[in-house]
Amino acid sequence: MRISTLTPRLVPLVALLCAAAVHAADPLPSWNDGPSKQSIVRFVEQVTAKGSASFVPPAERVATFDNDGTLWGEQPMYVQGFFINDRIKALAPQHPEWQTQEPFASVLKGDLKSALSGGAHAVVEMAMTTHAGMTTVEFDKIVTDWITTAKHPQTGRLYTEMVYQPMLELINYLKDNAFKVYIVSGGGVEFMRPWTERVYGIPPEHVIGSSIVTKFDLRDGKPVLTRLPKVDFIDDGPGKPVGIQMRIGRRPIAAFGNSDGDLQMLEWTAAGAGPRFCLYVHHTDAAREWAYDREGSIGRLDQGLDEAKAKGWTVVDMKQDWKVIYPAQTGASQATSKY
Amino acid sequence: MRISTLTPRLVPLVALLCAAAVHAADPLPSWNDGPSKQSIVRFVEQVTAKGSASFVPPAERVATFDNDGTLWGEQPMYVQGFFINDRIKALAPQHPEWQTQEPFASVLKGDLKSALSGGAHAVVEMAMTTHAGMTTVEFDKIVTDWITTAKHPQTGRLYTEMVYQPMLELINYLKDNAFKVYIVSGGGVEFMRPWTERVYGIPPEHVIGSSIVTKFDLRDGKPVLTRLPKVDFIDDGPGKPVGIQMRIGRRPIAAFGNSDGDLQMLEWTAAGAGPRFCLYVHHTDAAREWAYDREGSIGRLDQGLDEAKAKGWTVVDMKQDWKVIYPAQTGASQATSKY
Repeated sequence: MRISTLTPRLVPLVALLCAAAVHAADPLPSWNDGPSKQSIVRFVEQVTAKGSASFVPPAERVATFDNDGTLWGEQPMYVQGFFINDRIKALAPQHPEWQTQEPFASVLKGDLKSALSGGAHAVVEMAMTTHAGMTTVEFDKIVTDWITTAKHPQTGRLYTEMVYQPMLELINYLKDNAFKVYIVSGGGVEFMRPWTERVYGIPPEHVIGSSIVTKFDLRDGKPVLTRLPKVDFIDDGPGKPVGIQMRIGRRPIAAFGNSDGDLQMLEWTAAGAGPRFCLYVHHTDAAREWAYDREGSIGRLDQGLDEAKAKGWTVVDMKQDWKVIYPAQTGASQATSKY
Repeated sequence: MRISTLTPRLVPLVALLCAAAVHAADPLPSWNDGPSKQSIVRFVEQVTAKGSASFVPPAERVATFDNDGTLWGEQPMYVQGFFINDRIKALAPQHPEWQTQEPFASVLKGDLKSALSGGAHAVVEMAMTTHAGMTTVEFDKIVTDWITTAKHPQTGRLYTEMVYQPMLELINYLKDNAFKVYIVSGGGVEFMRPWTERVYGIPPEHVIGSSIVTKFDLRDGKPVLTRLPKVDFIDDGPGKPVGIQMRIGRRPIAAFGNSDGDLQMLEWTAAGAGPRFCLYVHHTDAAREWAYDREGSIGRLDQGLDEAKAKGWTVVDMKQDWKVIYPAQTGASQATSKY
């Protein structure tokens, strides 16, 4: 039976029932009405307007989001830094030598500043010790166990409760409009995948991140992938457009970040033909979250802020633009994607 | 309005109209009825049977297909080998030194056997010369121009006409049943992406392959990704499960290959919990295509054939199982995906 055989009175009814997305009155209720929100809605309406010159077919509606500082908090240390810290403490009983061996000794004393004074070498050593040497299946379980219980030392919230409610709404709004939404983060890809689907509604295959080398082996005749202590790919700065091209193979039409580490991703996105949207989350809310931009080592936004202004990209003023920061503040419990 | 407010008489009508996939009488018309076809249908029915113990949620229905020899022909040389051959000839006027320099001199004389006698070193040199040194956008155009015109020296067909009609039907059948279908090939990822969506209905972001290093640069203020003559990742043999984990982050529940280079992908797939499906295409049809397995350097199927028999994987006998090989033989013109 074809639609045309229905009585005319039924056609709108059927169309209504079949509609994939039922438009809510306001898809972005946690955003104050202002230039940031308006620019988002205008862009989405532009690329979804059938028959218009700005229409973009659904297949090409790729949107990429940074994670740390864009979808969840990153202060006073990246969440993955807290994970490393906690893993060193958990593994310490098996490593009595760590009591005197830096940078581990400082971590075990709770002195992160000294631990990090060893610079990049110390960071890599701590990262590899805690991220390599197990199978991918084992690491998935380690991350899952940690992320469901570990709490931020200052807020007392689960890290997954420190995601940004307005950005969750933005992800869902884009998905409702047939966008393919990806995470493109400097964080470890296997550190994110165990929870991004539950927390953001973004499935593992849409998560791009930094990685270490993995190796296929047969262990007692059973195939395993073992994580080796060797960097494979750093998905940060100029690595982000490279990661996007390697993994997605399409240029995004919209990109979202919060730091100079996202600048090349936004430049790459902006340089494509047709309608483009670039957005920076500017951390301006010291009372409800953190306020920082041009200074500091975590989430520095300096060159990016200048380029955003010069190019007319959207810069979200967290304090002005967001009614709430975290899902708990909406009155709802932990927001999960409806997908 | 909710469905429950409809009159009962309308409910089945609406359900019918809203159904995502309307089941054709036979989703695999180019497959002869036999154990291979039956095993495919049985598996799909098993994992899609709601409420059954074997049910797999759509999100986890990942299927991975090798490309060369599994979705299209690979004899007497990989298609990408013909591409390299043709590119060397096209670039020769800019490289007068190639007239005397091996392996290029032999290629220009049409003596591929001598060109390849330089072994891996010669192959890498030819591959890098023809695949690196340009931007990703430029390479996309080079591949697109070539693939739309180049013809197989023996069949006189476009290479994209030498795809296997039964496998196109299989891809569509899986997609109709909410599978996410990926290509996982030893071939170059950027060599496949320009045409896989048109020919197989598999979009760029679902194509995993071997890659060379790319680098982000600003050229006259415009961002470009330049392809460098350095191998990044070889997506073959034990590299296939690694590529799957890096790019998808989920273990497939079904995997399809034709050679020993696919064996680890099939082993990795088979080792997961729940229903699993592994299939080898066995090239047994010297009259309509090619017949080969344990001998030769292209698409050797030796250890894989033994393991398939030992483990009860499906082995497609091309001669017995397939009514037609190529789309043109169905009477239809070049088959394209309906997606």
